[in-house]
Amino acid sequence: MTTLIRGGTVVNADRAFRADVLIEGDTIAAVGENLAVPSGATVIDAGGLYVMPGGIDTHTHMNLPFMGTVTSDDFFTGTAAGLAGGTTTIMDFVIPAPKQSLIEAYHQWRAWSAKAAGDYTFHVAITWWSEQVHEEMGVLVREHGVNSFKHFMAYKNAIMADDETLVKSFTRSLELGALPTVHAENGELVFQLQQALLKKGITGPQAHPLSRPPAVEAEAANRAIAIANVLNTPVYIVHVSCAESLDAITRARANGQRVYGEALAGHLVIDDSVYQSDDFDYVAGHVMSPPFRGKHHQAALWHGLQSGNLHTTATDHCTFCAEQKAAGKDDFTRIPNGCGGVEERMAVVWDAGVNSGMLTPSEFVKVSSTNAAQIFNMYPRKGVIAAGSDADIVLWDPQGTRTISAATQFAKGGFNVFEGRTVRGIPRTTIAAGKVVFHQGELTAVEGAGRYIERPAFSATTA
Amino acid sequence: MTTLIRGGTVVNADRAFRADVLIEGDTIAAVGENLAVPSGATVIDAGGLYVMPGGIDTHTHMNLPFMGTVTSDDFFTGTAAGLAGGTTTIMDFVIPAPKQSLIEAYHQWRAWSAKAAGDYTFHVAITWWSEQVHEEMGVLVREHGVNSFKHFMAYKNAIMADDETLVKSFTRSLELGALPTVHAENGELVFQLQQALLKKGITGPQAHPLSRPPAVEAEAANRAIAIANVLNTPVYIVHVSCAESLDAITRARANGQRVYGEALAGHLVIDDSVYQSDDFDYVAGHVMSPPFRGKHHQAALWHGLQSGNLHTTATDHCTFCAEQKAAGKDDFTRIPNGCGGVEERMAVVWDAGVNSGMLTPSEFVKVSSTNAAQIFNMYPRKGVIAAGSDADIVLWDPQGTRTISAATQFAKGGFNVFEGRTVRGIPRTTIAAGKVVFHQGELTAVEGAGRYIERPAFSATTA
Amino acid sequence: MTTLIRGGTVVNADRAFRADVLIEGDTIAAVGENLAVPSGATVIDAGGLYVMPGGIDTHTHMNLPFMGTVTSDDFFTGTAAGLAGGTTTIMDFVIPAPKQSLIEAYHQWRAWSAKAAGDYTFHVAITWWSEQVHEEMGVLVREHGVNSFKHFMAYKNAIMADDETLVKSFTRSLELGALPTVHAENGELVFQLQQALLKKGITGPQAHPLSRPPAVEAEAANRAIAIANVLNTPVYIVHVSCAESLDAITRARANGQRVYGEALAGHLVIDDSVYQSDDFDYVAGHVMSPPFRGKHHQAALWHGLQSGNLHTTATDHCTFCAEQKAAGKDDFTRIPNGCGGVEERMAVVWDAGVNSGMLTPSEFVKVSSTNAAQIFNMYPRKGVIAAGSDADIVLWDPQGTRTISAATQFAKGGFNVFEGRTVRGIPRTTIAAGKVVFHQGELTAVEGAGRYIERPAFSATTA
Amino acid sequence: MTTLIRGGTVVNADRAFRADVLIEGDTIAAVGENLAVPSGATVIDAGGLYVMPGGIDTHTHMNLPFMGTVTSDDFFTGTAAGLAGGTTTIMDFVIPAPKQSLIEAYHQWRAWSAKAAGDYTFHVAITWWSEQVHEEMGVLVREHGVNSFKHFMAYKNAIMADDETLVKSFTRSLELGALPTVHAENGELVFQLQQALLKKGITGPQAHPLSRPPAVEAEAANRAIAIANVLNTPVYIVHVSCAESLDAITRARANGQRVYGEALAGHLVIDDSVYQSDDFDYVAGHVMSPPFRGKHHQAALWHGLQSGNLHTTATDHCTFCAEQKAAGKDDFTRIPNGCGGVEERMAVVWDAGVNSGMLTPSEFVKVSSTNAAQIFNMYPRKGVIAAGSDADIVLWDPQGTRTISAATQFAKGGFNVFEGRTVRGIPRTTIAAGKVVFHQGELTAVEGAGRYIERPAFSATTA
Repeated sequence: MTTLIRGGTVVNADRAFRADVLIEGDTIAAVGENLAVPSGATVIDAGGLYVMPGGIDTHTHMNLPFMGTVTSDDFFTGTAAGLAGGTTTIMDFVIPAPKQSLIEAYHQWRAWSAKAAGDYTFHVAITWWSEQVHEEMGVLVREHGVNSFKHFMAYKNAIMADDETLVKSFTRSLELGALPTVHAENGELVFQLQQALLKKGITGPQAHPLSRPPAVEAEAANRAIAIANVLNTPVYIVHVSCAESLDAITRARANGQRVYGEALAGHLVIDDSVYQSDDFDYVAGHVMSPPFRGKHHQAALWHGLQSGNLHTTATDHCTFCAEQKAAGKDDFTRIPNGCGGVEERMAVVWDAGVNSGMLTPSEFVKVSSTNAAQIFNMYPRKGVIAAGSDADIVLWDPQGTRTISAATQFAKGGFNVFEGRTVRGIPRTTIAAGKVVFHQGELTAVEGAGRYIERPAFSATTA
Repeated sequence: MTTLIRGGTVVNADRAFRADVLIEGDTIAAVGENLAVPSGATVIDAGGLYVMPGGIDTHTHMNLPFMGTVTSDDFFTGTAAGLAGGTTTIMDFVIPAPKQSLIEAYHQWRAWSAKAAGDYTFHVAITWWSEQVHEEMGVLVREHGVNSFKHFMAYKNAIMADDETLVKSFTRSLELGALPTVHAENGELVFQLQQALLKKGITGPQAHPLSRPPAVEAEAANRAIAIANVLNTPVYIVHVSCAESLDAITRARANGQRVYGEALAGHLVIDDSVYQSDDFDYVAGHVMSPPFRGKHHQAALWHGLQSGNLHTTATDHCTFCAEQKAAGKDDFTRIPNGCGGVEERMAVVWDAGVNSGMLTPSEFVKVSSTNAAQIFNMYPRKGVIAAGSDADIVLWDPQGTRTISAATQFAKGGFNVFEGRTVRGIPRTTIAAGKVVFHQGELTAVEGAGRYIERPAFSATTA
Repeated sequence: MTTLIRGGTVVNADRAFRADVLIEGDTIAAVGENLAVPSGATVIDAGGLYVMPGGIDTHTHMNLPFMGTVTSDDFFTGTAAGLAGGTTTIMDFVIPAPKQSLIEAYHQWRAWSAKAAGDYTFHVAITWWSEQVHEEMGVLVREHGVNSFKHFMAYKNAIMADDETLVKSFTRSLELGALPTVHAENGELVFQLQQALLKKGITGPQAHPLSRPPAVEAEAANRAIAIANVLNTPVYIVHVSCAESLDAITRARANGQRVYGEALAGHLVIDDSVYQSDDFDYVAGHVMSPPFRGKHHQAALWHGLQSGNLHTTATDHCTFCAEQKAAGKDDFTRIPNGCGGVEERMAVVWDAGVNSGMLTPSEFVKVSSTNAAQIFNMYPRKGVIAAGSDADIVLWDPQGTRTISAATQFAKGGFNVFEGRTVRGIPRTTIAAGKVVFHQGELTAVEGAGRYIERPAFSATTA
Repeated sequence: MTTLIRGGTVVNADRAFRADVLIEGDTIAAVGENLAVPSGATVIDAGGLYVMPGGIDTHTHMNLPFMGTVTSDDFFTGTAAGLAGGTTTIMDFVIPAPKQSLIEAYHQWRAWSAKAAGDYTFHVAITWWSEQVHEEMGVLVREHGVNSFKHFMAYKNAIMADDETLVKSFTRSLELGALPTVHAENGELVFQLQQALLKKGITGPQAHPLSRPPAVEAEAANRAIAIANVLNTPVYIVHVSCAESLDAITRARANGQRVYGEALAGHLVIDDSVYQSDDFDYVAGHVMSPPFRGKHHQAALWHGLQSGNLHTTATDHCTFCAEQKAAGKDDFTRIPNGCGGVEERMAVVWDAGVNSGMLTPSEFVKVSSTNAAQIFNMYPRKGVIAAGSDADIVLWDPQGTRTISAATQFAKGGFNVFEGRTVRGIPRTTIAAGKVVFHQGELTAVEGAGRYIERPAFSATTA
């Protein structure tokens, strides 16, 4: 199947330029001015549009068993929602239970993900430590294309990795050429703050942010960075939500460490005023960790993306419906943590970032796709419009507008943290693996069409 | 007994001025110009001398059972050495073994300290946690004049306090009006680095600093500060040795936290070149934690004292003789950690700090005595030359010189980290509780003359 | 005349304690518990009150000829208003016109100040440079008790000091043992921003803050500090209003420089929302430089006072009535800059600082009086309740409240930036030079009773 | 003319990959694996070599009339030396005398540069201000392809731009879509320090660094950044030499400003110990501004390049022979400032940066070529190996070594600051505009073959 995208402006991380894009099968065959139309080719008019690499969401949880329930979105609905938003690859997480074999968990997730409509790949969480874990990390890297391991510094009495596990797993990652990543929140502090709040009878969802103030996150970020410093390994901090964590990253980078940071679309535009409501469903719908922060943190995160101290944008897409959230009606610590966003990330970041002048279109591509592809070693297969790359392309209409609503979203869960937000700059057409899967509001995602992406170890910066 | 110190320059933290000082019994009765000589009074000529409050060493370990042995200095020899150096009060540590009753340990230390020649008081270490510990902290504060608790973030598998203990003990300290203090080193990192070094066959004492790089200390300092931030309690960091820890303190203070920092005389003037020797005894003699650091850290510490981001100077006086140190001949992790200094601190800090112009004489008094008295709530009984204060006084000869040597020291242990250093500015006479205990090189300390100093809780800044 | 203040709590910078205070003539004769009442003595009951050193306002402009007019308050009304607020000493400014002799200007100001009701002293501004200025700085220091020189980095085409003047005057100050101080705003940027705004037709007083953003102030603060660094002189930054300037100070201090900073009561509690009004008089009444800032700057300033990176509080008291302000009706650059505050500073800082827990009472004394006395070498004559010190005392009622209003103030000008603010913690009685000059709302200040305070050079930190 | 570079590893800023490169005329025609050899093509074997974009030296002064003499290297010898070192484009400076027409000066430099062997382009210095300057900046941008203007904050009484000029020129640059750049040193401080040193009889070249300490540079960098902040324009700081300047850049970037920084090869590897010699010629040979710094500054600069807070590497190539330097024999302020380096930059940066692991090969390309091309809007004509780009290519031998010496250099001046340094990683072959101009030590540069590169305004980040 041959497709020619004609008349658009290709936007890559290094520059924007007028060019046509020729697709053969699932691959980009040529990028150039005035390409000839091969016989039989479908021509897509991209006049007035930006032709950008499909988005990579570095942080999603589809089909996740968590806190006694399972997320609303499975790998089909979740990746399909992503495609509707211009995201063609998601990076999800294999999360073994403590004592569970990593390999077993990996295969479990691979089974769940088989129905994905868009490409996907997995970080694997290290939730416990043993000689077996040490061995299986090697197997995952060498045989299954895993090159990043995730560590939860929060969730005490569940999947929290203590310092011993962090040190041993970071050390192991280093020798395997894999990248350690962390969810940075001090789980002990969170736990004690939760207990103290509950003890005082403060049980509503409004208490959630009180149990996870910025210092709790900054402490953990700083600790992970210090461990990485001592062990001489790079490290990647997921969902950086506050100025204090970003400061820790910025300082470390200025001091010669290779530290990467990820910002969530939600943290970039939503502030903690959402917790000032008496509506349980509304507040619980915003319960995620780290929580939404005060307004000045948003400016900091944008500056981080612009200055290159933050690198990727993601969503932590992890949807639960109102009934699931209601499990914490009388105890906020039992509310399943998570919000959506895989469908809205690209438009939200473009609208708030590019329209405001904080990011150039090329910088948008960098933080929505290219940096992720490079850091996690999928580049140039992903993350760039170039001959030889996967034909994962979003045709972006910078003038198109859309008002986001749970009522019209493709994702499940029935809630949207961006509800009512009107964005300018939206995907008109999404092409995944060479096929149009979304066009002008119509989603034609195919269950099972997504491919598992293997990512080799020893990238340029983990070598 | 009445003594008149005549003709000197009184130096307090707030100013220096010409005045005589009248002592009645163990107390200062009057400070003023041209005081009349009471009949029967001994007159001490202080012409050309500074008359300063006796030094307070906020960090010593006399008679400490540690790593299978006991320090060379007991409370008599240790406090006597302090008096010879112008230090009239030491703050030592009660260190209960894990599972041991705090009260039991407290009485054990009180028994050991009965022979002290100078005044002393105790921080009590929290090395484990239980309801009993929670209770006994209250007893110590209410009944025994303890207002500070110490937490070792290092020494895994021994006395290390984990985050849970830190959170609970800081919380308890806050409600008791006591000040939590920490030895800031990430014990897990130290342990793993030690194991990694030993595994590589690096067993000599030169490996000691490699197992405790600055990042290990800065991480822990930052973590303790973050916990204090979240719990809204002040915190005191003992033996800050590196720029990175100090940065964490400076940032926190600039952000509105009450954080205090202590610098050791050794860290202020000795650098890590001492570890570049093949002489086991010499290198092992310098094994303490945190270790000596690269030269640029010293400048940072001095700037900290001058700017008010560090507050006290101490020694961590903890002496072991060569035979004791030799326990780690084949394994540096078995060398008893500790160096001396109680006898030299005042002169070393004066010489390097005041003679260089970095500190004024009043600032010297602040960091050698007054700040300690205020932070630990012994002021104005200690820390100032004023009517009503304890007659703990050092007559300082700013022109006097002395070359420090183990051969001539009063302290035990047979080793001196300041060996060969010539200082200008030395105590000519030390008066403790109204009695001359050191004069022109002659020590007349009396075993058992020292008093236990009770320190009330709820000081101005722990209220 | 003998007075005994009985039953109060004396608050000094180093501690608070129950004591009586005996005054003989204009001096404190004794401080102690249960002092006997001398015969003929007046007894003042201070039960429930704090007995604190009278405030020192380090920054006022009484009787100032400025922008074609003269301030509403002269030295009598201004110092009297200060006494009503608990401030017993003001530090005003001699501001020679460019080319004017410093000595001539000094005498001019001394003549104007003869009517002062409270004590006063002068900083002298260096508004131009020549050999004569160099000489006269020496005369002022040696013969007239001036130990601080002020430099305006703003006010282009008027009194602005360029870099050459700064370098030469700082150098001269250093050799004289005097302290250079700066008004830190980049005058060139202010001028160009003003011109640009006027050119766009933006002429109202609302434009004032737009012409002086924080970066304009931070640049100048940083430049003055850099010059001081290179010349190795201390430096004092007046009216630090924004986080960025404070950051420059904090960095420099942490780097070993002696930099001092002053915060204005107004900047500590008033934010820039006052400029969002259509009422010319109201907005113009708030026109001062630096202008009021966004809310987060206030938190920074308080943290600066608490951490010791800022040292003094002042007002820049410089009052103009509505008619005078109206000179800038059509051109905001012609509005005389200045607001009041000498009468309210102590209560405003206490209320916002001590009641909130950010400052202890002793820290309040430090930043309202003691630090000023020490930095400008008036200590211990000023800044402390001690035998021998001037009997400048405020009896502070921590429970008393007052609602501030122009309608009830003693100062002139008819406007009050603190209008409507209710403060808890107010002066009940002010004693200046041993005499009660204010008591329970009644002001009995005497014209001409104020004394000129000579301040010797070569303080502890300019030596 | 057709050339095929076969078997090498192409290194671009985004990645390294095995590919052949086909050159047609002066342009790259194709990049791909196993390209067919066109008939008549010359084949260059690049086995074992890196195929990288030719270097861009963003900062050179060829044929510069300066301090009463003219640099040793003219545009032919200078660009030829560059080609020998793998640098195919230089960015030189048109420096009008105060009062001189910018257009006139521009043509003067164009005339001098006609003999260049490699491509070149010009920054134009703004050394004075008038309506004419304002107009001519527009002409330069619109008609002559100039998109960057340089401002000297040093060199008082000569070409120094005062704040008024900076503000006006930055404002003008912003409206023209051009990038303002600054030489950041406070000229007033330098001048006063020079005078003070000379007055003390310190006249030798060893005094040069004493007259330009880091604070002098950091002050100016901070000032330029503050002006850019207030005017909302990007800014580029040339030859950042010290940690303090870099800190100012890092802070500004973290705060959302677009600030770019340039590091010189010399500052990256040479420290100020070179000034500790009695040999006038040796010390004078190292006289450049900013001077070489203490060792710890080098680590900071490398961290800046790695973290993306510094962007380009250059040389400030500005050669004078010993006789010229001798003009300052009795007065160091008369020594013509300048050192060489255009020939050594690539190898020195590779050797110290890539071999040490601080930079990946792609990061090397970024800081030696790509970033410069992007910031100054020559990309993708320059700065990348891609079809359509100029065939400016260096074939890099990572194992090749060379010992640098004035005796063997192509540049004039007879002195080399890298004398005796052995580097591993050197250009084996340089191709400029499609022609081999250097191969295995043999230079075949052609006088006049270089082209003037026009650079359009309104790049992605000046738009």
